[in-house]
Amino acid sequence: MPYMPVTESMFLIAETREQPMHVGGLQLFIPREGQTGTELAEEFFEAYHGCRNVRRLFRKRPTPPAMLMGYLSWSYDDDIDFDYHVRRATLPHPGRIRELLRYISLHHSALLDRTRPMWELHIIDGLEDGRVAVYTKIHHSLMDGVSALRLLQDTLSTDPDDRNGTAMTDPMLSRSKKPKPQTPGPGLLSFGGVTRLAGRAVGVAGQALDVAGQLVGVAPAAAKIAWTAITDDDFASPFVPAPHTMLNVSIGSARRFAAQGWPLERLRAIADALDITLNDVVVGMCSGAVRSYLIDQDSLPDGPLLAALPVSMRQEISTEGNKVTLILANLATDQPDPERRLATVVSSTRSAKKIIRNLSPLQALAFGVASGAPLALATIPGFVDYTSPQFNLIISNVPGPREHMYWNGARLDGIYPVSIAMEGLAINITVATAADHVNFGIIGARKELPSLQRILTHLDTALEEMEKVAGINDRGKR
Amino acid sequence: MPYMPVTESMFLIAETREQPMHVGGLQLFIPREGQTGTELAEEFFEAYHGCRNVRRLFRKRPTPPAMLMGYLSWSYDDDIDFDYHVRRATLPHPGRIRELLRYISLHHSALLDRTRPMWELHIIDGLEDGRVAVYTKIHHSLMDGVSALRLLQDTLSTDPDDRNGTAMTDPMLSRSKKPKPQTPGPGLLSFGGVTRLAGRAVGVAGQALDVAGQLVGVAPAAAKIAWTAITDDDFASPFVPAPHTMLNVSIGSARRFAAQGWPLERLRAIADALDITLNDVVVGMCSGAVRSYLIDQDSLPDGPLLAALPVSMRQEISTEGNKVTLILANLATDQPDPERRLATVVSSTRSAKKIIRNLSPLQALAFGVASGAPLALATIPGFVDYTSPQFNLIISNVPGPREHMYWNGARLDGIYPVSIAMEGLAINITVATAADHVNFGIIGARKELPSLQRILTHLDTALEEMEKVAGINDRGKR
Repeated sequence: MPYMPVTESMFLIAETREQPMHVGGLQLFIPREGQTGTELAEEFFEAYHGCRNVRRLFRKRPTPPAMLMGYLSWSYDDDIDFDYHVRRATLPHPGRIRELLRYISLHHSALLDRTRPMWELHIIDGLEDGRVAVYTKIHHSLMDGVSALRLLQDTLSTDPDDRNGTAMTDPMLSRSKKPKPQTPGPGLLSFGGVTRLAGRAVGVAGQALDVAGQLVGVAPAAAKIAWTAITDDDFASPFVPAPHTMLNVSIGSARRFAAQGWPLERLRAIADALDITLNDVVVGMCSGAVRSYLIDQDSLPDGPLLAALPVSMRQEISTEGNKVTLILANLATDQPDPERRLATVVSSTRSAKKIIRNLSPLQALAFGVASGAPLALATIPGFVDYTSPQFNLIISNVPGPREHMYWNGARLDGIYPVSIAMEGLAINITVATAADHVNFGIIGARKELPSLQRILTHLDTALEEMEKVAGINDRGKR
Repeated sequence: MPYMPVTESMFLIAETREQPMHVGGLQLFIPREGQTGTELAEEFFEAYHGCRNVRRLFRKRPTPPAMLMGYLSWSYDDDIDFDYHVRRATLPHPGRIRELLRYISLHHSALLDRTRPMWELHIIDGLEDGRVAVYTKIHHSLMDGVSALRLLQDTLSTDPDDRNGTAMTDPMLSRSKKPKPQTPGPGLLSFGGVTRLAGRAVGVAGQALDVAGQLVGVAPAAAKIAWTAITDDDFASPFVPAPHTMLNVSIGSARRFAAQGWPLERLRAIADALDITLNDVVVGMCSGAVRSYLIDQDSLPDGPLLAALPVSMRQEISTEGNKVTLILANLATDQPDPERRLATVVSSTRSAKKIIRNLSPLQALAFGVASGAPLALATIPGFVDYTSPQFNLIISNVPGPREHMYWNGARLDGIYPVSIAMEGLAINITVATAADHVNFGIIGARKELPSLQRILTHLDTALEEMEKVAGINDRGKR
């Protein structure tokens, strides 16, 4: 039986009924000319349900019995219950995006079955505009959001006339005819990528160590980080506690999902005008939106919120295996002026990036693991309520395809990540840029964060505010 | 905070992700003349989603924090998230019963959220025949299947022109204009009824006792039962172990639901011809079907399976408060001959009933609790695999309405109970007789019991076999 590294088992160990540890993705497709939504949905269903030869990844499940610190090995099923894993659904009348988001909200709240390979694929028709939605739900111990997205892209083609659309469960999935997966730049990455890569490095030191041992093993880098925190005011160190907010509480199992896309060119114009990165604009939007949401809820703390941003280091340190870490950004939510708020956000991420460049790869990696470590401890009852959070939320950016992509001629019209809300981290914002749109997927604890969908309006407002700061004539752009 | 009796908390304590402890009901309605399925579904949705004044029962949830032996009190929510509890769904094309059963199977597998009142109501259209399904899902700590069914009946009317259809969550639900709930005869009852009533009696002795204490408190009746087991061969004592079967294993969280109804007159004809009870015919059908299913699976044990049957004693001991207990029936699954198999079934239930008549009400009640007690212990890891089961499955019968009932003119066309599969009890058969049909609802562990839906065919075959035994001309009846 293959041994399970801590970076995989930690997601099984940390999982509770209030804190499911699966990641999701919502993709929207426009049927090809002359095809109805139901016909496209049936075509997807046949491809997935009929794919009887399933790649190893989608056949693995934790080996029983379930033990407290257990699940240390994987088993592989030959017999797959396709009716369970591949599901058809139809939205109830009137089939608006609202009904779709409600469907995702309710299904993302339910735990995956541990006695079988931990994934589901839902193929959904009934949208009033005729589009078809594909919702994937995969346990984080199997795969992170970035890998899932790449696998999905491998099933797509840039050629609208290509009719070789396959299932991502297909082991014969040909990569040769597909465009190479996008290599992410020095931008944001999903949280999953961080811990996965971290685990590979830690694993070198000895996979037989237990979870606590592996996390303790990364402590030496802490001295360097502590020193930086003292000498650099802009650096949001993990050892400076973030404020307590309504985002950092114990949560129930129910979720709410909100999603919306904005034209890439609008964000790009701001980045160009202000000489900041596209990621700065994304974080700036989140900063304004979270501030407005907390004001709505009469819960804005005096101090600024801190966000953890998984960051790729692929281009800086190309020969090392460790390419991802976490940085902390000051969201400046205490700052009412949009221009000054954005300036603080940009300054804090630039400063944090500089620090990472000065750390050795292992130290930089450790920084990420240190920032992420409390997540694994959060399931100890009461832990969240009695300690200060190191950060208030995670904002990630998953690289999507840069061109328009097709599945059997049906155009991919949007990708929205559906991530994980946790004990103490009741909201997660994950962004996927695909073709010409920047798509935000927001998952939150349903009961603890009322009216979460208002964040979409606040993101739009924050974008408009930044356009004004950048001197862009908003009306002329739209 | 109201104290929670052990009969309620035991369902919360025993619940694991592999063993959800909610009961369900599936009702089918025929839209009234000129009404589409979608219109009826919307009408149901408005009645439930719009019922803002919710009765206390549907506002109660376990008080946090979650502790191992905790959940000893209830809290009451004033603010109900109706979008969460009341759901609309549409079956995917082609909208057969198969798609409906798949929907129920998948949704019955998911745990209810403990941070809110533990119930859901799904209103489902999209059936090709235009009928509308209402699936209720309620935690067993709140209510048992019998009570849920009665509450549902209170929302219905015998008058097809009555347009005062209300929601069962409505505290103003008028009972005056409704027919009186059916008083169950000396027939079968749901497992839930047993433990609930048992708890009331035990509670008199002191509600402050812990779970173990309350269960131990019923031991004195054991002597009488042991004596009976020695002196009466037909009596299936709980101390004679049932055989190990594939029905008595550790289970995963996924379920499969199968359901079908048969005309009451067919079962009645057999009962009349053979001078046995309707319940004997029901158990006889189960006996033949389970035998055939185990043969399919190449898993028929040498010894006969034992079934636990919750039995009402209302008419025998009318002045006492305790009206329900469990009896064990010998299913004679080792017997290939239908006639001899049925004879053994009937003989064993008659014998067990006789015993119950000779016990005092408290002793009879204790007999039920003693038979049920191991269920609460089954969540201890490994417990199931290393001990012999006291019985192999539970077969219950929930009393439904005897007349045709209507909701705003839409006729109730069938009630199918969706019960609980447990660690060690991978299948549960619950039967509801409503108007002129006997409806079987079968819930089973999806992975452990493959092709469970074949039981429906086997039930039909078993019914035909008994018709032959009774000398009924099968063709003439249909």
